[in-house]
Amino acid sequence: MQKTQQYIQTNLNRFLNELLAFLRIPSISTKAEHKEDLQKAASFLIERFKEAGADAVKLVSTYGHPIVYAEKIIDPRLPTILVYGHYDVQPVEPLHLWHSPPFEPVIRDGKIFARGASDDKGQTYMHLKAFEAMVKTGELPCNAKFIIEGEEEVGSESLPAFLKSNAEGLAADVVLISDTSMIANHTPSLTVGLRGIVYLQVELTGPQRDLHSGVYGGGVINPINTLCQMIACLKDEKGRITIPGFYDKVTELSPQERAALAQVPFDEENFKKELAVEGVAGEEGYTTLERMTIRPTLDVNGIWGGYTGEGAKTVIPSKAYAKISMRLVPDQDFHEIGQLFTDYFTSLAPRGIKVNIQLYHGGQPVVVPMDSIAYRAAELAMEKTFGKKPIPQREGGSIPIVPLFHQILKVNTIMMGFGLNSDNIHSPNEHFGLFNYLKGIETIPYFYHYFTELSKQQQAR
Amino acid sequence: MQKTQQYIQTNLNRFLNELLAFLRIPSISTKAEHKEDLQKAASFLIERFKEAGADAVKLVSTYGHPIVYAEKIIDPRLPTILVYGHYDVQPVEPLHLWHSPPFEPVIRDGKIFARGASDDKGQTYMHLKAFEAMVKTGELPCNAKFIIEGEEEVGSESLPAFLKSNAEGLAADVVLISDTSMIANHTPSLTVGLRGIVYLQVELTGPQRDLHSGVYGGGVINPINTLCQMIACLKDEKGRITIPGFYDKVTELSPQERAALAQVPFDEENFKKELAVEGVAGEEGYTTLERMTIRPTLDVNGIWGGYTGEGAKTVIPSKAYAKISMRLVPDQDFHEIGQLFTDYFTSLAPRGIKVNIQLYHGGQPVVVPMDSIAYRAAELAMEKTFGKKPIPQREGGSIPIVPLFHQILKVNTIMMGFGLNSDNIHSPNEHFGLFNYLKGIETIPYFYHYFTELSKQQQAR
Repeated sequence: MQKTQQYIQTNLNRFLNELLAFLRIPSISTKAEHKEDLQKAASFLIERFKEAGADAVKLVSTYGHPIVYAEKIIDPRLPTILVYGHYDVQPVEPLHLWHSPPFEPVIRDGKIFARGASDDKGQTYMHLKAFEAMVKTGELPCNAKFIIEGEEEVGSESLPAFLKSNAEGLAADVVLISDTSMIANHTPSLTVGLRGIVYLQVELTGPQRDLHSGVYGGGVINPINTLCQMIACLKDEKGRITIPGFYDKVTELSPQERAALAQVPFDEENFKKELAVEGVAGEEGYTTLERMTIRPTLDVNGIWGGYTGEGAKTVIPSKAYAKISMRLVPDQDFHEIGQLFTDYFTSLAPRGIKVNIQLYHGGQPVVVPMDSIAYRAAELAMEKTFGKKPIPQREGGSIPIVPLFHQILKVNTIMMGFGLNSDNIHSPNEHFGLFNYLKGIETIPYFYHYFTELSKQQQAR
Repeated sequence: MQKTQQYIQTNLNRFLNELLAFLRIPSISTKAEHKEDLQKAASFLIERFKEAGADAVKLVSTYGHPIVYAEKIIDPRLPTILVYGHYDVQPVEPLHLWHSPPFEPVIRDGKIFARGASDDKGQTYMHLKAFEAMVKTGELPCNAKFIIEGEEEVGSESLPAFLKSNAEGLAADVVLISDTSMIANHTPSLTVGLRGIVYLQVELTGPQRDLHSGVYGGGVINPINTLCQMIACLKDEKGRITIPGFYDKVTELSPQERAALAQVPFDEENFKKELAVEGVAGEEGYTTLERMTIRPTLDVNGIWGGYTGEGAKTVIPSKAYAKISMRLVPDQDFHEIGQLFTDYFTSLAPRGIKVNIQLYHGGQPVVVPMDSIAYRAAELAMEKTFGKKPIPQREGGSIPIVPLFHQILKVNTIMMGFGLNSDNIHSPNEHFGLFNYLKGIETIPYFYHYFTELSKQQQAR
């Protein structure tokens, strides 16, 4: 991989400028007004894959945003790596908290600031450039396939159908994804567990029209007060979720497993300082790190109702809304938890309040086996470029597509992320370190190398 | 008052067109962008007062929106009626629920639809036209003074200073206000009690920036969940407000007083049907009517935090907000209740959440004496035009200025409203009946007449 590494160093400036151009496209998948921008981002990738030397490059139309597919089959007898990434990004609100516009990338303090810089345009683009380097230098050691979708931030709705109807053509030996974080730049890590998710929106309706809170106050049920009461009922004083049956399928980790996870460096004082909070809280009996990785959650992600403008308005609104998500752990099933939530939440409503619940999206939790050659190859690749063996860690976020790859393509996933938790993904001022971008491009070819070598050794045995 | 009544009938069409022109000015006092519209509405009144024959007509500048003052002193020995009204209106959101634009008044089914049609531009304008009719026909029986302000919907902040610094010039024998409702068009009523109000905004801050709910969920305190819990704590399961000391100064009505108020016709089935709710709820031990008039309340008027746009965003926000108001009854003091709320609400916050509370405005509750000649004059005036003696009733809303008139000018107020509770004030599709507009203009001169006559009789005795 010497020529590849040489190629990367020589072309680094161009690799960076290409990423900045990619980041300038406001590909916010959740907003209908950005539909064309998603198309634009996909077309951008199509062109770059072609330039990199990929074959069968195509834009796959879906009911939502298109999927970009590309491949390079050098020998059917060699192993195949399927790379997954996404080119869509989160919304940017609240806009006024950004220090520079989210779609005008700038480099400050060695970091690229832009929406999607880390999640996941930056991390996706590392794979494209590593692939280009291997192809252009003749060092691509195995077959490669790429699926870059545009609906990850809105539940990857089109992907399952695409995987199912193309299962044969997508056959691979491992899925490789960079959409997670490392512990620190000097502490590489591999993600071996992800939480699942179920995301819902609740709508409460009280009186059929907004009412004057002076004239009617006290005599009618206020849907905002009621929504607050119902949400407050969802957790007890120990921080446990009260939905009946919620914990029934949660796998409790053994003391050994908990001890292993506690190896991950975590400085609670620093954590509080970084967030500027005086205290942390959560489910009783678990550490902060456990609460964020091996335990399920329930968070209100948005709430609104009544008058929210400047000044005062004395109104009892007709409606109140909340967006609520739960993070799930093995072996919770998002369909089942969504139903348990719906049943329980509806049961909390007093007479005079109508409840309407909409399921937005879900994803199953996942655990990655650590005794595979794919995991070993990832360890070796990171050790090569970081000079240190990566630590296995569980992450709190969800990539709902990971369990789907296993289910539909019968293949395991390696989650080799190069971002950091402090990258502000999903928040204002998202960024991605230049160090991280480069380290990703350098490390990925070694994964190809070791995975191919270990596969050959296994076949030989 | 025959010539006056004749003049009203003859000029009715013009009176209506003038009101429509007045309603076209979007005088929303809570929004800075409408500052010029408030000025415009005030100037409109200035011109009409001059045309009506008022003297000393002037625009009084304030730190907020201007006050319109006008008067007609025909003989200092005669009694003086001080009329109060307001030309500012509530915001119009949610705009999509209006059947016609809020500032393009239309007449449908005998009602004028526009923001401010009833509250309080329409009711204020009745006084101007009744005054014009009496002046133009030479039948004005006493002195008249007018204060029409532009900050009623935002707490009347400039008025106390204006009253205090002009107390001598504003001296009057009674204050007359039409900013309340009658029971029904065939059931006239006079308002003898109003609730007070204290309106606050609370801001909760958790982590100093928005966080990804997957990465951080479970390990940090979510300010929205916390806000819901804190709001839920403000009432117990009997619908009573839990703020320590909240009920200490509430005057409990005697069984006789409660029986008298129960005379007000109120059809609970109809009430539920009108609001399209299956049930009503509120403080245990009180009727719906009592809950809305003689009992204090706590309502969330607005709530917001996190992602409230289209689709899903997996965020734990840094901040969550609510606008909360309490309606007060004699002898609660809004300063004191605001402080009790602030102390209690702050005490509910867990470690890791900062609370910031802003007091928006307040007004004291009020009870009107029914043994005065002013009350008798109002009864006689309504009996004259409606053919029925008005029923005394308590209203749930607040006019914070009423207790101020008593405190600063040492004068009682008559609340003779011609609107209906079903006028949708503060809601989409606010309207005011043509019947009500006309009845108001007809009735007001009789109040002037009887009040002058009864005052003379009292002096003679």
